[in-house]
Amino acid sequence: MRRDEFLKLLEKRVLFLDGAYGTELFKRGFRGKLVEVLNLENPEMVRELQCDYTGAGADILLTNTFSANRMKLTQYGLAEFIEQINAKAVEIAKSACKTDQLVFGDMSSTGTFVKPLGEIDFDEVYTIFKEQAQILIDSGVNGIIIETMSDLKELKAAVLAVRDVSRDIPLIVSMTFEEDGKSVTGTSVEIFATVMNDLDVDVVGINCTLEPKQMLSVFSKLAKYSKKPLCVEPNAGKPMLVGNRLVYRTSPEEFAIYMRDFVELGANIVGGCCGTGPEHIKLMRNYIGERTPVQRAVTKEQFIASRTVLKPTEPFLIIGERINATGKKKLQEEIRQMNFSHLVKLAQEQEQEGCAAIDVNLGLEKVLSEEHFRGVINELDRYASLPLSIDVQTLNFLEICFREYVGRAVLNSATCDEKHLLPRIELIKRYGGMLIVLCMEKDIPEHSEERVKLAKKAVEILKAEGIELERVFFDPLVLPIGAKKDHRVTVETVRKLKELGLKTSIGLSNLSFGLPERESVNAAFLSLCVDAGLSAAILNSKEQTTMNVLRGALTLKGEQLVQIDQIEEEPL
Amino acid sequence: MRRDEFLKLLEKRVLFLDGAYGTELFKRGFRGKLVEVLNLENPEMVRELQCDYTGAGADILLTNTFSANRMKLTQYGLAEFIEQINAKAVEIAKSACKTDQLVFGDMSSTGTFVKPLGEIDFDEVYTIFKEQAQILIDSGVNGIIIETMSDLKELKAAVLAVRDVSRDIPLIVSMTFEEDGKSVTGTSVEIFATVMNDLDVDVVGINCTLEPKQMLSVFSKLAKYSKKPLCVEPNAGKPMLVGNRLVYRTSPEEFAIYMRDFVELGANIVGGCCGTGPEHIKLMRNYIGERTPVQRAVTKEQFIASRTVLKPTEPFLIIGERINATGKKKLQEEIRQMNFSHLVKLAQEQEQEGCAAIDVNLGLEKVLSEEHFRGVINELDRYASLPLSIDVQTLNFLEICFREYVGRAVLNSATCDEKHLLPRIELIKRYGGMLIVLCMEKDIPEHSEERVKLAKKAVEILKAEGIELERVFFDPLVLPIGAKKDHRVTVETVRKLKELGLKTSIGLSNLSFGLPERESVNAAFLSLCVDAGLSAAILNSKEQTTMNVLRGALTLKGEQLVQIDQIEEEPL
Ligand SMILES: [Zn+2]
Ligand SMILES: [Zn+2]
Ligand SMILES: [Zn+2]
Repeated sequence: MRRDEFLKLLEKRVLFLDGAYGTELFKRGFRGKLVEVLNLENPEMVRELQCDYTGAGADILLTNTFSANRMKLTQYGLAEFIEQINAKAVEIAKSACKTDQLVFGDMSSTGTFVKPLGEIDFDEVYTIFKEQAQILIDSGVNGIIIETMSDLKELKAAVLAVRDVSRDIPLIVSMTFEEDGKSVTGTSVEIFATVMNDLDVDVVGINCTLEPKQMLSVFSKLAKYSKKPLCVEPNAGKPMLVGNRLVYRTSPEEFAIYMRDFVELGANIVGGCCGTGPEHIKLMRNYIGERTPVQRAVTKEQFIASRTVLKPTEPFLIIGERINATGKKKLQEEIRQMNFSHLVKLAQEQEQEGCAAIDVNLGLEKVLSEEHFRGVINELDRYASLPLSIDVQTLNFLEICFREYVGRAVLNSATCDEKHLLPRIELIKRYGGMLIVLCMEKDIPEHSEERVKLAKKAVEILKAEGIELERVFFDPLVLPIGAKKDHRVTVETVRKLKELGLKTSIGLSNLSFGLPERESVNAAFLSLCVDAGLSAAILNSKEQTTMNVLRGALTLKGEQLVQIDQIEEEPL
Repeated sequence: MRRDEFLKLLEKRVLFLDGAYGTELFKRGFRGKLVEVLNLENPEMVRELQCDYTGAGADILLTNTFSANRMKLTQYGLAEFIEQINAKAVEIAKSACKTDQLVFGDMSSTGTFVKPLGEIDFDEVYTIFKEQAQILIDSGVNGIIIETMSDLKELKAAVLAVRDVSRDIPLIVSMTFEEDGKSVTGTSVEIFATVMNDLDVDVVGINCTLEPKQMLSVFSKLAKYSKKPLCVEPNAGKPMLVGNRLVYRTSPEEFAIYMRDFVELGANIVGGCCGTGPEHIKLMRNYIGERTPVQRAVTKEQFIASRTVLKPTEPFLIIGERINATGKKKLQEEIRQMNFSHLVKLAQEQEQEGCAAIDVNLGLEKVLSEEHFRGVINELDRYASLPLSIDVQTLNFLEICFREYVGRAVLNSATCDEKHLLPRIELIKRYGGMLIVLCMEKDIPEHSEERVKLAKKAVEILKAEGIELERVFFDPLVLPIGAKKDHRVTVETVRKLKELGLKTSIGLSNLSFGLPERESVNAAFLSLCVDAGLSAAILNSKEQTTMNVLRGALTLKGEQLVQIDQIEEEPL
């Protein structure tokens, strides 16, 4: 089944996944440590369970390969069997299928944390996932599911790995959350949804940890923030030890009733995780029946995100400018020595001052290496919380940053020159993120008409590349008034771009470069720009006048800066 | 000679006044206390001196009536002779004239200070001057000169008195200044010029106190700030006692040479004060000869002034809003009890905060009397220093304030309704000042087009009444955004009025009435208005964001708030 056929099928009807493997095989007597061993040692036991799921009406069977990645297998001394375990699992699942059933290769965590939470490199995890995905796909699965993930960064590595094996394989990704809607690594379901909206995945979902009743509110957030079809696999309640048996308290009947609620909220694929068995799947399928997926209302807002913080970009995105090593010798020297403590402090300060994102510019790049960029991204991931605007010139370093970054960052920036713009579009297509496009090519046009003309050219390129314009800010360019540049050209360009329905962002402080009293000029100018329709600014949030005026200018427009708390507290 | 004929003559050639009376009659043997007594006791002695001045070439003879006002005469027990002394003086001067010579009735100070500097009421001084002016004019003088005045308020009373006797008599007013360009009451020559520009006087001048060399720099300031023809009468240097004779050290030759410098600076009438005699006048006339007055470059800027502080209104006039008793019960009660200490404190604070003028609104006026308004004007004259914006609704009270005020105030405000506008135009014609005209009649029009239309109507009325439009601010009206009024109407009205070449002023804080965080909204809006061309605002100068943004907005326009120091320090 091709990817587009799978997506058409998802539009047509709600699909049913199977239930648990680990808990069900335990129930059926398996007492080993790794159920994947059964693929080689007792394939019939696996096949029997899968036949039961087929009989229960599952549209999709997962392969018994949840932990069959090299990292996990190594822990059990089984690394040498990686290919057989995965290939055999596919073979077993296929043999348990009816004609129109699908087999998805099951993948999950390596069990370690990627840097900076753990010790393992992103690229190492990526390689581990790529190896397993390659075997599963070579063995003929119809799709891949990456599930029970709790680290967004590890998930990102897995997604990139699967897609680097096949651009055409259907791909479901599913994270596991606590009842408060956050993963154990602090990533909220909204951030998960936001980041996955950009990535090349087909279905996003939630599974494990929670029983259906607890998962409903988490799932409803996913339904609100995700633009993708949805998958859900709750546990059958928390396990209780009764005698020497683990008993899951959610009965198949109760499970089935709840699962229909998920369908009402917009689930496209429903199944069961720990504690569920063929009976759960069967009753669920009967209770829900053959039905068309519900059309959901997804928020139209654009968000940016770090691993733990989600920020709306509307009505206005404030990006702090102060991490900028350009012309700062001492700071540059610290960065060269991989000492990022000053940058972390600057990020924390700017968060206190009311920024929603932090621009990161390491200054002179030719004296730096990939490790400096990886280092700063990881350090800020660990010790600062806001999303980043990655202000890097060298394309290779820019890719390092976006690859390493956990969340949805802003790429700052591309010009309208196709040769400059296209590779940066490729980056946000592959890694996600928003983009700032400067209204210039080699030189900055003097008049607003010419700047707008370049923006229109860029719009055509972006459309052709399939980038939604909502993901893009156009920078009308601010020049120093001290150098006799006319600030009205900028305001006019903002106004015209707004009339074209485009979003705009400026680097505010450039206006007052070289002036003695910068804050008041910046603030006055910002009010004019906001009035003209400006959507974002990279600014010095230490300037209280500027920050105050920004609030006032937005109030004048009948808008107010939204606190993320308000969004999170929104009732179901 | 009619007033217009006199003004034509002034355009044609430089005129020569006579020299001193007091010092010259002393030199000739008079040892009494009041030279005016000679008019009755020894008229021939006066006539002889005046004939000498005629012979020296004086175009204008002054009557020997410098101190012949009721206040001064009373001190010498001569009040009953007031009519004879003045009338006789005119008769003597006329008899000493050739056909084409002019006789100007000489008036000067009552020798007391008007309230609040002294104890005497403005109206009492006014009555004293009116009495003397009436006698002089009835006796047939060709003009009046009010000279050697050091209190601007007393001068104002004298001007009003003369004009209330005759609108057609030529009128010269002359103050006396120290070498630093300030009168002993602290009024600068620039303030004198500024205030007299509005009043119905024909010639302004400086006399006495200084010798020619010292007077030049003071006179050059007058020449820069005064729009009127200029008169100058220096002393012949400081008097020195040689034996039992007072000797003035400036010789006639030296005097003549200096006096030509005054003509070069733009003097239209030149004469001598203390220490000068016929020889000074004769040499001066010969040295200068028959010549056309120099065309001066007069500053086009509009200034406002208190007794001691001059403030430019360009590029932007900041008027402090905080003296406003509306809705403040305790403050209103204090005002009713003639306790203005709180108002004085508010005025002082607002000066510190950077205001150029202080708006004064006493709140509910029907519970107040004329004395409250006189009281507040005098209290602020005495204890605060900035010029005022007089925000009074009741026409009668408004006139009290303008009559009592020393300086050039802003009348706040008239509407475009002719019935409301005309009497307020009359007030600034009579007493001087600038005017705020609200772009409304009974109601506030909803759209900017209608507001501009009303402003245009007011412009026609103002032009017909001879009011220069530079003296007028149009208020486009700011309504509370909290009440869903559109602030853009205000900005658009400012822009259109600016395009018409009109000045604009807003009451800023009304915008945010009822909002929780007013400062940021006010500041953001002010930037938009300044960008649209706003010239003035009544605002809360405690709002630092607003004050900062104002500075920035002006910098953006390439303008900066001018410090009055810069003006005063300007070299010759
Ligand atoms: Zn599970
Ligand atoms: Zn599971
Ligand atoms: Zn004198």
